[in-house]
Amino acid sequence: MGYQVKYKVWIEADEHTFLGNGRIRLLKTVQELGSLNKAAKQLNMSYKKAWDLIKSVNHAAKEPLTITTTGGNGGGGMQLTPYGIRMIAQYEALKAATTTFMDQQNFKN
Amino acid sequence: MGYQVKYKVWIEADEHTFLGNGRIRLLKTVQELGSLNKAAKQLNMSYKKAWDLIKSVNHAAKEPLTITTTGGNGGGGMQLTPYGIRMIAQYEALKAATTTFMDQQNFKN
Repeated sequence: MGYQVKYKVWIEADEHTFLGNGRIRLLKTVQELGSLNKAAKQLNMSYKKAWDLIKSVNHAAKEPLTITTTGGNGGGGMQLTPYGIRMIAQYEALKAATTTFMDQQNFKN
Repeated sequence: MGYQVKYKVWIEADEHTFLGNGRIRLLKTVQELGSLNKAAKQLNMSYKKAWDLIKSVNHAAKEPLTITTTGGNGGGGMQLTPYGIRMIAQYEALKAATTTFMDQQNFKN
């Protein structure tokens, strides 16, 4: 078996982590379920950890990626802002381009 | 200030780390100084840590990257094998190609 080229890509804002694979997974699950609590449960993550991650994302961001919705049947929820949806799409495009590039690299024995 | 795309590249062999920036720096310093002890000192690294890193490199490698030389004036030393020199060159080519690619990526606000 040969050598494997490994890589990791993430986004920072002023030396703070903004987006990485874990944050994107959480944001997409929030988008799907409309609730941070449900998203945390689905990802087997504590609510506190999920909340801290979302806080850290929005702290590093130029605009909020999530919005908290209150009231209604079943209490409050969380949704993505249009900016959040755009950031996810941009991250996924970067990941796809990087994967295409890295898959072309090899490291010979 | 905008967002920054960050990345890390390394080489694995059968799920073990083979080469990364730190290991390459150590190997190049060994090559330059002809001694693991001197290389460790120059990099402010304990001899044990340097030795463990070299052992880990050679453990993951298909062929040894270093060779221990004995005797002579000043005692034993360490040099790179032709295979080791080729691995460093290959790693640096990969890093350069990756840097060129990643520098073309951007992440808009």
